[in-house]
Amino acid sequence: MGGKGTIMTAKPRFAVVLSGCGVYDGAEIHEAVLTLLAIDRLGGVYQCFAPDRAQMHVVNHLTGQEAAGESRNVLVESARIARGNIKALSEFDPAEYDALIFPGGFGAAKNLCTFATQGPDCAVDSDTDKAVRAMHKAGKPMGALCIAPALMAKIFGQGIDVTIGNDQGTAQAIEAMGARHTQAGHGGVVVDKARKVVTSPCYMLDSSISQIADGAENTVKALLTLMGR
Amino acid sequence: MGGKGTIMTAKPRFAVVLSGCGVYDGAEIHEAVLTLLAIDRLGGVYQCFAPDRAQMHVVNHLTGQEAAGESRNVLVESARIARGNIKALSEFDPAEYDALIFPGGFGAAKNLCTFATQGPDCAVDSDTDKAVRAMHKAGKPMGALCIAPALMAKIFGQGIDVTIGNDQGTAQAIEAMGARHTQAGHGGVVVDKARKVVTSPCYMLDSSISQIADGAENTVKALLTLMGR
Repeated sequence: MGGKGTIMTAKPRFAVVLSGCGVYDGAEIHEAVLTLLAIDRLGGVYQCFAPDRAQMHVVNHLTGQEAAGESRNVLVESARIARGNIKALSEFDPAEYDALIFPGGFGAAKNLCTFATQGPDCAVDSDTDKAVRAMHKAGKPMGALCIAPALMAKIFGQGIDVTIGNDQGTAQAIEAMGARHTQAGHGGVVVDKARKVVTSPCYMLDSSISQIADGAENTVKALLTLMGR
Repeated sequence: MGGKGTIMTAKPRFAVVLSGCGVYDGAEIHEAVLTLLAIDRLGGVYQCFAPDRAQMHVVNHLTGQEAAGESRNVLVESARIARGNIKALSEFDPAEYDALIFPGGFGAAKNLCTFATQGPDCAVDSDTDKAVRAMHKAGKPMGALCIAPALMAKIFGQGIDVTIGNDQGTAQAIEAMGARHTQAGHGGVVVDKARKVVTSPCYMLDSSISQIADGAENTVKALLTLMGR
């Protein structure tokens, strides 16, 4: 690689948007790490981003209960997954990346939008909304794992094809935002070619960690295909 | 699998000991997740454990600075990596597992022992010490990634063969505890057959995430070989 200076000989550049660190109040850690692994294994490079804002709340992952009175910052906690190499999502420049990916976890529905509490009436974090719209305007593909497709449904609305696995209640909430929901199994992806959006259920299904690795890899492969690689 | 009831037809059972959640004050997240992936991909099953005690301190992973006045619990934070499915290390029963693995991260040297601050004069967390000695007594193999081999050097002492990569200062501290240090490269493992201890440098070397996956996989493979599988 390198030396030619053209976009097609350079490694594909992925921006990965994290939403905290831990499935119940942030980014799902396995999905996040296995997305990074898939990008690296498939020849890409990545940069992590997260919004610099307070988490909706903090959940004790041992008990599953809210840790009352505790507050954490999404960017600071996401930095744990990124080993410190992370930027504020407000600094995201779509010209510098070929694709954008959102791993799942409740953080995608609590910190990147309010889907977890408001369902179809949710609001999207402004930096997240701006990044997604800028990539779409630039004609670049995006991926969303697990519950993160709710973001795509809210932003794109009418007629976007997505999957969040097979949970009926969540599928109905996604469809109430105008999306078309398709069931997908372990490692499966749904590709909306018109909008260049790839979704995969990951831990929306009861999954082994190997099945999460498959879902992340198939999502990155589909994004590479949408890039013409 | 299953139904036969003999140890050799059942899936190999791995106990994975975490030390928090994040490279600078806990378990290194990539090493932990990729250890779980390697176990699953190679046909094993896993259970995560962590000591139920306060972390040495909390580090803001965005700035690298200590978060003064904040305190977190090792078991509670480790539960983020384990998606809540984790047990206190005090409950570890060596009869229920075929191998024990320690991913790295500063947590292994701050929360499982005091190597990060006391070097060769470090003390080992009592539950960690007990678990390692019980597995050794039972003739079962153990793995340690990144800086976690310091634990093995402290507990086993004289003559144990380990690697922590190629960092001279750390290697000297390991040798001051009686261990013999061997340099190892990306994905490499050092096996002490007499003590059934496998070590791999992982992020003690400047590594890509794929190289961490290789190191975790080669460690699990070596443990399976030591089990006679």
